[in-house]
Amino acid sequence: MKVAKLPTILVIVQVLFIVFFAIFADYAPSANAKYPENSKDADKGGADPSKNKLHSLYDMFQHVHVMIFIGFGFLMTFLRRYGFSSVGFNMLIAAFVIQWHMITHGLLHMATEHSSSFKIDIESLLTADFAAAAVLISFGAVLGKTSPLQLIVMAFIEIIVFVCNEYIGLYFFKASDVGGSMFVHIFGAYFGIAAARILYNSKVEDSKKEGSNYHSDLFAMIGTIFLWLYWPSFNSALAPGDDQHRAVINTYLALASCVIVAFAISSNSKEAKFDMVHVQNATLAGGVAVGTSANFMIGPWGALLIGSVAGAISVVGYKYITPYLARRWKAHDTCGVNNLHGMPGILAGLFGAIFASFASVDRYGNGLYEIFPARAPMENSTKLLEIQANFTISAGDDRSAVQQGGYQFLAMAVTLIVALVAGAITGFIMKMSPLDPVKERHLFDDGHYWETPSDFDEAVQFCNGTDNCETVNLKSFDDEKNAEDPDN
Amino acid sequence: MKVAKLPTILVIVQVLFIVFFAIFADYAPSANAKYPENSKDADKGGADPSKNKLHSLYDMFQHVHVMIFIGFGFLMTFLRRYGFSSVGFNMLIAAFVIQWHMITHGLLHMATEHSSSFKIDIESLLTADFAAAAVLISFGAVLGKTSPLQLIVMAFIEIIVFVCNEYIGLYFFKASDVGGSMFVHIFGAYFGIAAARILYNSKVEDSKKEGSNYHSDLFAMIGTIFLWLYWPSFNSALAPGDDQHRAVINTYLALASCVIVAFAISSNSKEAKFDMVHVQNATLAGGVAVGTSANFMIGPWGALLIGSVAGAISVVGYKYITPYLARRWKAHDTCGVNNLHGMPGILAGLFGAIFASFASVDRYGNGLYEIFPARAPMENSTKLLEIQANFTISAGDDRSAVQQGGYQFLAMAVTLIVALVAGAITGFIMKMSPLDPVKERHLFDDGHYWETPSDFDEAVQFCNGTDNCETVNLKSFDDEKNAEDPDN
Amino acid sequence: MKVAKLPTILVIVQVLFIVFFAIFADYAPSANAKYPENSKDADKGGADPSKNKLHSLYDMFQHVHVMIFIGFGFLMTFLRRYGFSSVGFNMLIAAFVIQWHMITHGLLHMATEHSSSFKIDIESLLTADFAAAAVLISFGAVLGKTSPLQLIVMAFIEIIVFVCNEYIGLYFFKASDVGGSMFVHIFGAYFGIAAARILYNSKVEDSKKEGSNYHSDLFAMIGTIFLWLYWPSFNSALAPGDDQHRAVINTYLALASCVIVAFAISSNSKEAKFDMVHVQNATLAGGVAVGTSANFMIGPWGALLIGSVAGAISVVGYKYITPYLARRWKAHDTCGVNNLHGMPGILAGLFGAIFASFASVDRYGNGLYEIFPARAPMENSTKLLEIQANFTISAGDDRSAVQQGGYQFLAMAVTLIVALVAGAITGFIMKMSPLDPVKERHLFDDGHYWETPSDFDEAVQFCNGTDNCETVNLKSFDDEKNAEDPDN
Repeated sequence: MKVAKLPTILVIVQVLFIVFFAIFADYAPSANAKYPENSKDADKGGADPSKNKLHSLYDMFQHVHVMIFIGFGFLMTFLRRYGFSSVGFNMLIAAFVIQWHMITHGLLHMATEHSSSFKIDIESLLTADFAAAAVLISFGAVLGKTSPLQLIVMAFIEIIVFVCNEYIGLYFFKASDVGGSMFVHIFGAYFGIAAARILYNSKVEDSKKEGSNYHSDLFAMIGTIFLWLYWPSFNSALAPGDDQHRAVINTYLALASCVIVAFAISSNSKEAKFDMVHVQNATLAGGVAVGTSANFMIGPWGALLIGSVAGAISVVGYKYITPYLARRWKAHDTCGVNNLHGMPGILAGLFGAIFASFASVDRYGNGLYEIFPARAPMENSTKLLEIQANFTISAGDDRSAVQQGGYQFLAMAVTLIVALVAGAITGFIMKMSPLDPVKERHLFDDGHYWETPSDFDEAVQFCNGTDNCETVNLKSFDDEKNAEDPDN
Repeated sequence: MKVAKLPTILVIVQVLFIVFFAIFADYAPSANAKYPENSKDADKGGADPSKNKLHSLYDMFQHVHVMIFIGFGFLMTFLRRYGFSSVGFNMLIAAFVIQWHMITHGLLHMATEHSSSFKIDIESLLTADFAAAAVLISFGAVLGKTSPLQLIVMAFIEIIVFVCNEYIGLYFFKASDVGGSMFVHIFGAYFGIAAARILYNSKVEDSKKEGSNYHSDLFAMIGTIFLWLYWPSFNSALAPGDDQHRAVINTYLALASCVIVAFAISSNSKEAKFDMVHVQNATLAGGVAVGTSANFMIGPWGALLIGSVAGAISVVGYKYITPYLARRWKAHDTCGVNNLHGMPGILAGLFGAIFASFASVDRYGNGLYEIFPARAPMENSTKLLEIQANFTISAGDDRSAVQQGGYQFLAMAVTLIVALVAGAITGFIMKMSPLDPVKERHLFDDGHYWETPSDFDEAVQFCNGTDNCETVNLKSFDDEKNAEDPDN
Repeated sequence: MKVAKLPTILVIVQVLFIVFFAIFADYAPSANAKYPENSKDADKGGADPSKNKLHSLYDMFQHVHVMIFIGFGFLMTFLRRYGFSSVGFNMLIAAFVIQWHMITHGLLHMATEHSSSFKIDIESLLTADFAAAAVLISFGAVLGKTSPLQLIVMAFIEIIVFVCNEYIGLYFFKASDVGGSMFVHIFGAYFGIAAARILYNSKVEDSKKEGSNYHSDLFAMIGTIFLWLYWPSFNSALAPGDDQHRAVINTYLALASCVIVAFAISSNSKEAKFDMVHVQNATLAGGVAVGTSANFMIGPWGALLIGSVAGAISVVGYKYITPYLARRWKAHDTCGVNNLHGMPGILAGLFGAIFASFASVDRYGNGLYEIFPARAPMENSTKLLEIQANFTISAGDDRSAVQQGGYQFLAMAVTLIVALVAGAITGFIMKMSPLDPVKERHLFDDGHYWETPSDFDEAVQFCNGTDNCETVNLKSFDDEKNAEDPDN
């Protein structure tokens, strides 16, 4: 076998990953047979198998897992000639990210906690999936316009920045973002949009391949609906007890109201017709918009309100803002991630900051300190001891509600800036020729990257030379195929 | 933006929902941070986060959730030119119903329990999904023949009647129906069929668009199989302990035998060929037919028997009864919900009544009083106290087995009558012209309601003017497109 | 209704199943209302409903259930004209097997345990699904080349052999195989390949119908991804506590690395293009290859290594070994189960034997005796009592690590031989004419077994008599249709 560039790089990467894991990774105690408690029965001081950490998270983890691989993967198959790449590269990138995130996240925590290895448990698997979501959102912005190698490089850089940004948000700003609307959605969306802006090629607008067909739109709905169904798990997976229960309810409600409003605004056009792009995407905006405050005491009506606003903004975004960004700002956003993740993410951050500014012990009980650890009283204060008599919390910074709101806002703003800057820099790196940037005629086209079945080209041949076929918009592919194509 | 009728109505509805929720809805204690027990550690009398009510139901809830949105949604995509509407309107209706059901169900229980608000927890989400199932079954009967506005009106009325009928069945008749075969399946099926009868348009029979194509049949199988897989959760979600375990086993077995018999009867034709309509639908009839008695002690063989009978009846229904109903009774049932939900539901009700008539403490232990609360002894009776010494139950009506069987039958009969009458009345309301009844040429056609990709119409243009294409049955659409169409 | 052969046989089989269940099957105590503990509250010595066995397994069971019916079913829809059969026969066979496995497995255990009935609980449902996996793997080898009747006969025989082989492996050799890589994957693959070898028809190689189209490849990805997602559940479902947690982690990691390497090797061709066949199948090989040792202390890096090797071997298998086997050995393996299940299964067995040879108490703690019960000390030995003071285990055979490794290898070798011999014999039985072997022109074609929608044949008629359509490779079907076909 002759060895080519991409395979070589992928194999080297995987070998390096194995080496990193061999040096630094180990099972967490709850997954480690060697851990002494696992060698004893529960009534002899051992670990109770039925209470293994796996059980409290596995269900939620699997929901998120489905969202990443089925949800994002199929959502992007709406492009009629890019389905293999959508679902295939989605899988490749995610498989890369879940390993790379464990390493970067692990190394960062080893550094800050002065430990010599990082431990893997079900929570590592879950947070790796969250990180994959950020990269796949960015993938949505550049969909159809990048080579696999560019995507791997993007994922490589993005995860490093993602881990650092999240660390700053969670540990410096002590912001609360249970559903990752800031650290995952805003980050992924604007990172991707910035990269797409730098990669902009004016020929993108002319491509007749960027569009759906009837069945590709149905394949995309598989992704949409699984995302919609499991979003409550995404937003609640890492919350405990009543917080988790509330996050499920709020997300479910926000998604329900978002559907109604998205359908409403979608059909509010001259022809009074619904648009599948809106149904596929805007119906999910409620899940993003409620993400930061999903475990807050926003009230069921608050969740419905947030979902409604998000649905409206998202559809308006698809109708007006996406074309405007492409035309005026040369930011061509293939999947419209600005409308599904970007603006609803900002909405989530704003709602989060506002609600945090009004959060009180009166309304939250001691749960306040679970959700906003920085609001807990200082170390050794009388107030802390009083609370700790009833409820296990750590010492905090004694922040006021408004201070917490300010930090929430700060975390959002920093995330936005970091994402834009890092995305743009990554875009410049991706443009470098060794990464095989996509030629114009290969935009939105599986043909260059995949062995394709005969009907992929038949669609074109079918109509050659007959009059009534000239109207078929797939014909243009044919011309491209006949053109000299040295590297295809 | 010019504002049109449907968007306006949807937005007003959503605003009203938010107002209703703001006035009446609150988190249940297990989802409410303010609840004092949530502010204490479990060992100080607080609520144990790991035992939050969410955990016992979330898994089952998500299975049912998948059934509603993926299962029903994709099952109906079998129509070759109505896939967008099938999966899209399914989503719209379900999102409407889950909010509207919480309100109506909440108000009813506020009235009967003299409380000032209704509480939302994971069980509310689950029962809202059950209610959505009823409406989506009705949707199956009228599929392709109604406007979105008609569907919203149908859902609005149907839920009110659904909540009342279920209340009567559960609280007056004290019938047991763990899988909702009576209150969900019979109700939804005959409500929809009655409405379809009133909406009957003789041109429906001529429509060349009512049919599948090769890939639309595969999309439908996604729906079928997820329904088939998660049906044990549907039938067992609300049962406790061994009852739940038994309901899972019985449903799994009934579905397995149903598949064998449905395939058998399906291929028993002159050509000895299987029919995808049967595989898509009749294979599920076992889940419906065992629904009422899923938690009864019917024995594993009993479950297999019920499933077998249901599979046979359902296929026979598709082969003979659906055409007969359409021809003779003008009841055109697009998805054949009579065969999948109606007759198997009646079967479930009958089996339920029969098995209930033979249920004894000897066979059920004290579980008898969990399944049939009315069979528990009267308040203050010695017998009640004896039982309560071992097992927590409430006082009942001291019903005999046969009495319980009679009430089971009564609940079924009342459900059937209520559904038919309410469905017919709703059909008349849906016919009113402000609700935009569907014109003949728009039957079973996404083109009137959706922006469609180019291949939706290409399929027609493809063959214009060539001889060998005259046999293509999509051609008829072309003529319609050329006809004057003032409102398209 | 005229009664035909297949329907008659299916109905008789189902009736016999019901009779078998009526005589021998009963609910397990945890699903039986009659069981006295279920009639008492937990604090009075009764069973705690919240700790019902259902809850510890239901989640995992449903994941496996999805793998069997969605995963295998859709994975095989890649054939462009065999989608109905793939997903339909998959459902039929699995529904047959889950009943038949309960009976055979039940009878075997009744015989060995001298009991008069077999008990059904959630574990029975789960192991029945595992057994279905074996048969469906065999189905993959003969896909498109067998009649439904042949498949039922194959399933009937295969399950009997499967149950016996597994019994020998687990109870005589006391081999550990938590993910069933030996007893399910090796067994199913080589049983199917042996049967396919006997059924070999040289015309298979000429069939123009054996191939995918663009959308059938996307349908197949639904199967692939659900298999990929839920494989950690398949490999861990029957392990307890930390073993289960570790099995989830190891499988997740092996699958992730497998994706990277499979993509790498796939695109390492002259054209540098990915192949959907590899993405659909080879990405899963890591799950198989780590199956036997998923709960061993192989280390996270060990899991990554196993997955990488499996991904490489599997793609190489699709590229070189499958064509070679068909050409040289007349073993035509439609889905390439040798590459996805066969060779990775052998890899799993070898890795299992090697790792078992190095397993020590030092590395595993007392968990060693959970994973390898035969390594526990002999009955009444001091060493056993010492362990039992801390940890509940049964007496074993005091095997050494190397002995255990030897038995692991033996179990694999016996499984391979049993599968090949039994598969070949079954192939000869399947060839008998009363089982309706498939005629050449019906290979890989739904048309003979299913009512097909108009576009199934339109594809052919479309191009009749026009010049530019001669290149369309579906044309050949047309000739066959025109040929005399007495039994179609």
